[in-house]
Amino acid sequence: MGINRRIGVFGLGSMGYGMAQSLLRAGHDVAGFDLNEAAVTAFQVEGGLVGAQADILPDLDIVVIVVLNAGQTRDVLFGANGIAQHLSAGTGIIACATVAPSFAKEMECAVNAAGLHYLDAPISGGALKAASGQLSIMASGTETAFSKVRPALDAMAQTVFELGDVAGAGSAMKAVNQLLAGVHIAAMAEAVTFGMTQGVEPAKTLEVISQCAGSSWMFENRAPHIVDADYTPRSSVNIWPKDLGIVLGIAEQAKFKAPLTTAALQQFQAAVSAGLGDEDDAAVAKIYADNAGLVLPGNTS
Amino acid sequence: MGINRRIGVFGLGSMGYGMAQSLLRAGHDVAGFDLNEAAVTAFQVEGGLVGAQADILPDLDIVVIVVLNAGQTRDVLFGANGIAQHLSAGTGIIACATVAPSFAKEMECAVNAAGLHYLDAPISGGALKAASGQLSIMASGTETAFSKVRPALDAMAQTVFELGDVAGAGSAMKAVNQLLAGVHIAAMAEAVTFGMTQGVEPAKTLEVISQCAGSSWMFENRAPHIVDADYTPRSSVNIWPKDLGIVLGIAEQAKFKAPLTTAALQQFQAAVSAGLGDEDDAAVAKIYADNAGLVLPGNTS
Repeated sequence: MGINRRIGVFGLGSMGYGMAQSLLRAGHDVAGFDLNEAAVTAFQVEGGLVGAQADILPDLDIVVIVVLNAGQTRDVLFGANGIAQHLSAGTGIIACATVAPSFAKEMECAVNAAGLHYLDAPISGGALKAASGQLSIMASGTETAFSKVRPALDAMAQTVFELGDVAGAGSAMKAVNQLLAGVHIAAMAEAVTFGMTQGVEPAKTLEVISQCAGSSWMFENRAPHIVDADYTPRSSVNIWPKDLGIVLGIAEQAKFKAPLTTAALQQFQAAVSAGLGDEDDAAVAKIYADNAGLVLPGNTS
Repeated sequence: MGINRRIGVFGLGSMGYGMAQSLLRAGHDVAGFDLNEAAVTAFQVEGGLVGAQADILPDLDIVVIVVLNAGQTRDVLFGANGIAQHLSAGTGIIACATVAPSFAKEMECAVNAAGLHYLDAPISGGALKAASGQLSIMASGTETAFSKVRPALDAMAQTVFELGDVAGAGSAMKAVNQLLAGVHIAAMAEAVTFGMTQGVEPAKTLEVISQCAGSSWMFENRAPHIVDADYTPRSSVNIWPKDLGIVLGIAEQAKFKAPLTTAALQQFQAAVSAGLGDEDDAAVAKIYADNAGLVLPGNTS
């Protein structure tokens, strides 16, 4: 409590930038890194550490890696310009990307071998909660890893689920959550458009179903985007082929059939193919509407 | 307000019996009818009207039909011993079965032609809420129909969604709700068992996901049945091939593709084929577990 840490945040995208802000607000010394120079400069203007990466790395207590996937996580740590070799022994690593549990275990092993501590720590909650320090984090790792990175977790998260002392458990729970979240978004789109075929307006479906047994967190969160015809990406369609692909990859390894996940993935893939990848994920409803010749709210064509 | 009605309830199953009790408790004179003589006698012991159906029918103000499907609804009204011909002009009919909107419209037409008033009024909430008078009812029908049956709705429902002045709209919304509810139950089963393949115990999935974006009303309601290994049917597997079959029948008429609903239906059909039809619908998880060689809680085999 009360002791500042030196923290490096790798990845200043919509999630990472907000997390870096939350760390700054909690009083830590925070350096932000990204291939996007504009994001790095903007964060420095907000109070982030300024300096050469080579000078900053050896003094970091904690590293937060908030990149898109397993490949980028590996690159940050062990790529051509990987940071692992420049960090001081005992530094704690918080790895936030959605990855397969087996990848998290592999990284934990490699990071431990480098004298560092790895926390498998996928995040949930979206950009607004990242910026307000209210994320949910599904974390697993050694007691030492938890203890090393605790000040950063406290600053970034409202809820930290501690899921055991081995990397992989956090990523497994994240995969379970993404399976449900992805299926529920596609189901919301299927239900709203199905209702339209029966003359039920999306606004009425939203009003009634929100109070009924058919509701879900995603229904209540995403159906309003269709009603309001607002596809500004809070979370984009592009997330889902990636995350449901991870889920189905893990499932296949375990010889587990996941037919609803497979069906949802196909709808998101169709949305990407239709050029909707950068829209809000509620735009998967446009695939259903196009197939059935329905006109969604706001679409006057 | 305060004026007793004479009400006939047709169908004293798990929903109808509780609804008849709620009507009694509100002070109405209630006659219960069912092919199951034991249920009829039990309801008479609780205070239901005693007498020959032929004597009771002409004096009824309101009829509530709580049977399994469209065929039974038609039989009650217009079958060989159909009641429509014996009811007095102006009697209000509350039709509660889950049916296609087109069937509801057809019944409204036939009932109106007989001088009666039809309310398309599918119910949601389960047997406990039926018994406590706290159902949700998704209703549509003429203003006269609503006004005729209002005292019965007040006694049976916590929430009445008034969805327009034409029969069919209530059934359409019920179909939307059932689409989501059925998909969410199957998704819950898929996610809980997928987690098990990654070493995540169902109890931990329940604990974490209930607080995350992957949650749904059905997840929170049904996942505990798996964790507790309690498959006592609050709502049985058998409901879902019927209700999702209705949804997909309507969808096909509208040339609407519903791939998640189709995938969920297949899982429930597999559960029925495996002899699980009379178990709680959470038992659909047993299909996933069997396919992947997983051992669910409580299954020590």
